[in-house]
Amino acid sequence: MIRFRRFQRFRGFERFRGFRAAGRRSLLFACAGVVAGVVTVAAGSAQAPAASASDLVADLVAANRILVMEGVLDGMGHVSARDPRVPGGFLLARSMAPELVTAGDILEYGANGEPIDARGRTSYLERFIHSEIYRVRPDVQAIVHCHTPSLIPFAASDVPVRAMYHMAAFVAEGVPVFDIRKAGGVTDLLVRDAPLGRALAKTLGARSAALMRGHGAVVVASSIPNVVGRSVYLDINARAQMQALALGGRLTYVEPDEAKLRMADPNEYSRAWDLWKQKLR
Amino acid sequence: MIRFRRFQRFRGFERFRGFRAAGRRSLLFACAGVVAGVVTVAAGSAQAPAASASDLVADLVAANRILVMEGVLDGMGHVSARDPRVPGGFLLARSMAPELVTAGDILEYGANGEPIDARGRTSYLERFIHSEIYRVRPDVQAIVHCHTPSLIPFAASDVPVRAMYHMAAFVAEGVPVFDIRKAGGVTDLLVRDAPLGRALAKTLGARSAALMRGHGAVVVASSIPNVVGRSVYLDINARAQMQALALGGRLTYVEPDEAKLRMADPNEYSRAWDLWKQKLR
Amino acid sequence: MIRFRRFQRFRGFERFRGFRAAGRRSLLFACAGVVAGVVTVAAGSAQAPAASASDLVADLVAANRILVMEGVLDGMGHVSARDPRVPGGFLLARSMAPELVTAGDILEYGANGEPIDARGRTSYLERFIHSEIYRVRPDVQAIVHCHTPSLIPFAASDVPVRAMYHMAAFVAEGVPVFDIRKAGGVTDLLVRDAPLGRALAKTLGARSAALMRGHGAVVVASSIPNVVGRSVYLDINARAQMQALALGGRLTYVEPDEAKLRMADPNEYSRAWDLWKQKLR
Amino acid sequence: MIRFRRFQRFRGFERFRGFRAAGRRSLLFACAGVVAGVVTVAAGSAQAPAASASDLVADLVAANRILVMEGVLDGMGHVSARDPRVPGGFLLARSMAPELVTAGDILEYGANGEPIDARGRTSYLERFIHSEIYRVRPDVQAIVHCHTPSLIPFAASDVPVRAMYHMAAFVAEGVPVFDIRKAGGVTDLLVRDAPLGRALAKTLGARSAALMRGHGAVVVASSIPNVVGRSVYLDINARAQMQALALGGRLTYVEPDEAKLRMADPNEYSRAWDLWKQKLR
Repeated sequence: MIRFRRFQRFRGFERFRGFRAAGRRSLLFACAGVVAGVVTVAAGSAQAPAASASDLVADLVAANRILVMEGVLDGMGHVSARDPRVPGGFLLARSMAPELVTAGDILEYGANGEPIDARGRTSYLERFIHSEIYRVRPDVQAIVHCHTPSLIPFAASDVPVRAMYHMAAFVAEGVPVFDIRKAGGVTDLLVRDAPLGRALAKTLGARSAALMRGHGAVVVASSIPNVVGRSVYLDINARAQMQALALGGRLTYVEPDEAKLRMADPNEYSRAWDLWKQKLR
Repeated sequence: MIRFRRFQRFRGFERFRGFRAAGRRSLLFACAGVVAGVVTVAAGSAQAPAASASDLVADLVAANRILVMEGVLDGMGHVSARDPRVPGGFLLARSMAPELVTAGDILEYGANGEPIDARGRTSYLERFIHSEIYRVRPDVQAIVHCHTPSLIPFAASDVPVRAMYHMAAFVAEGVPVFDIRKAGGVTDLLVRDAPLGRALAKTLGARSAALMRGHGAVVVASSIPNVVGRSVYLDINARAQMQALALGGRLTYVEPDEAKLRMADPNEYSRAWDLWKQKLR
Repeated sequence: MIRFRRFQRFRGFERFRGFRAAGRRSLLFACAGVVAGVVTVAAGSAQAPAASASDLVADLVAANRILVMEGVLDGMGHVSARDPRVPGGFLLARSMAPELVTAGDILEYGANGEPIDARGRTSYLERFIHSEIYRVRPDVQAIVHCHTPSLIPFAASDVPVRAMYHMAAFVAEGVPVFDIRKAGGVTDLLVRDAPLGRALAKTLGARSAALMRGHGAVVVASSIPNVVGRSVYLDINARAQMQALALGGRLTYVEPDEAKLRMADPNEYSRAWDLWKQKLR
Repeated sequence: MIRFRRFQRFRGFERFRGFRAAGRRSLLFACAGVVAGVVTVAAGSAQAPAASASDLVADLVAANRILVMEGVLDGMGHVSARDPRVPGGFLLARSMAPELVTAGDILEYGANGEPIDARGRTSYLERFIHSEIYRVRPDVQAIVHCHTPSLIPFAASDVPVRAMYHMAAFVAEGVPVFDIRKAGGVTDLLVRDAPLGRALAKTLGARSAALMRGHGAVVVASSIPNVVGRSVYLDINARAQMQALALGGRLTYVEPDEAKLRMADPNEYSRAWDLWKQKLR
């Protein structure tokens, strides 16, 4: 786990003025503190309020760091948010360790996973995980791809993850395992192109998470706070389930009807999210 | 686990002057440092010495933070103390992450779990866990509700928690599992009303702790230090038991007659409590 | 685990001038930094060089904190060193959390576990663990009593601790389990008097460690660095063994002849000890 | 895990001017910050660019600390790099805790594990692990010897380590177990001489890692970043595998053909390495 102090060196965020005037809109992402701070915004487009785009970037930066702080990500993995201004587009950091991401590292991607204004900044190889899920899941607003250690055992096993408690109620929908070998034959296990991304999206279906054999997982949700909350509690749930199975007794999981009621709350993880953001400051 | 530094930002506690003159009494909760500090008190009631109410608030704030520091609580969960001035009443933070609770966030509740002077501050949905246990357990002075990860496996299993060592002697009384489905049918697993709280209190009976299926646990004791100590060592005990069962040998638990002698000490956890408070400073 | 910062508040050690002129000797323990620092010593006795007594106190203070830092002790448990100036005597902190011990908290005890100059400072109830082992084990110079969580499963089980690797070679001698019920009937599980201490010492025999059913363990060695090293690596060894047993395969432990050769090095843990002391600074 | 703060006290690196004019070459290792910093270099040899030697030392110092920070090493263990200027030679810290290593502690060794200019600084007893592997593995540029707790169970077991995910793809080559008893009879388990080193190198063969029964492991790679990356993810892989086996289901490991494709990337761990170095600063 990461401590508060680790983030102190990020306090002075360098101003990012990613001016871009492309096709349908122009946007100035202004300097955004990780969470709040003074946000200076200048927008050249009427389509989307720049403040909200800036907030989205700030939340995405926070999400990167929270996921490291809570042990979901290490030097690898990524988190994206749907770009409300571009059909199928999304926001995602350039290829770098999530712990170090600042507002200036967030790139915009088009519906096919193409960076729109990279200016020399490299992209994550596996950005097609994001593009292909956003394409077929209009309900999804944010996506995490992770190698969380507690999920690796289940990703290699035919024992399914089950919902241990209300904090991970979404698990009751089922968490399928994506085997890249069935989709793409012998690979280096990375989702390097759109066809592999589509195959993963197909395995995911309408659910909230899928494991990836020999690799990790993908988690989706209706907002950045929710995808972070789901990722954190999927981890805790997986560890609790491994311990529960080792007890050797009979187990009673959260049942789908109970999970459905719990998931009806759209702000399920808002208290946790507020706390995590507070800790980043 | 949380480190000392995390708490440094709380050093300057804002003064809280929750003046209230309601029905039977008037009370001024003065600014209270987490643990000690200079406590300025002005009381408008002769029934209960204000200093003691103020100490109780300070201890309750410390309990919130210690439980996070020791891994019992995360962004969720709560701890309450019986209000000595109000029959059936209790003190409990407003709805917020326990790690951030200060004296100004502690609300007073009546015997039916109604906030007495909320002034816009929201209440934990599950405050009925507290009200209904205080109602039937006059010996109980403090209550913790938690989702401690090590307890989730036992809450889902028919393997009972057993007392592994003298630091968790109270476990020898037995730790029943409350299944909300039997009490309330299909729910979102939360104890949202008094009838569910009563059902939980009934499962708890005269014991010190109960697990909640698909949810977490409730722990009770004769004082704030004791309920914190029990919660911390219930966690360690659960982990030790899971490991002991995995060893595959024959196990000898602490026996009830031994536990009874150990529990005769009313200050069982005082050394640990003093250390934890010291760490918060 | 505890971090370096936690100890910074101890940097300014209050001067302790425990002047005592009792029977056979007089000694002035001077202010001792945790580890080294400038040690001012004034001795009124020719029998034992005061510098060495002061070094012993400094090492004992360091041992208390290292054992917390490394997770062997929490708010409970204690570590002692034989007092070279008093037959059967030993040095042990007053009753307090080991993490907070300073030089001024170290008391001298006689051969029967009686504090020699307590001046109001209370003693650990279980000091008889120390007095009775020093009595029958002239080779032992330092003793740790702990409740390390990883040892609790083995203390409750008939599966013996086995030596997993060279860092815990002493385990190959065997680690017996002391059952206080066989020695003292129904107790509160604490070693509260000399007869219980003697029974524990008898179970320990000539070995380096014994587990205590429903309670914890005792570890002994020829020096403070060695007793700390053994305690730390007994913990790691226990966790490794639990994991090894769970693998389900055939295990090969360190054999006694190998262990004997490894243990021939009297400074087995000196590099680790030097590092730990450095971290306290 | 170690925190950033722990390294702050190393910020001011003492200047090391290890002037040496021996036989075939003369070299001045200049002061090197842990990672980068301002490096002042003066070289008395034309054979190897001094800047590169200095970078190598800086990376080796960083490797020592990263391996502690990530839990691979504690007070024991070591990491070396092949010395490009001396056939069979290598760079390795003097005998000390890896966490404390600075540039001035790095010694040069000849092909037989002899320190070239020790000037009173002692050598690790087990340097023959390094010399004998470099001798027979021209592809190997860096070696880690560790006692990582998660590897001790596998080192004692006949259950082999298997590749759980792409971050530890090299495990798919197989990780043999070296039993020193078969090579050297009854020992103190340490690789104290060249014959034992040769026997270990033989067990390792052409692979990337070998476990050592009752002791630990050795990991090799084509660069310092890669040997650190492999060591870190071998640890995570081992823990994930233990959990996966405990699940009780059927497991599918990373297959050799997949691993081969993944390992084709020579900079497999570069993003993680950059992050780790950043954290040391």
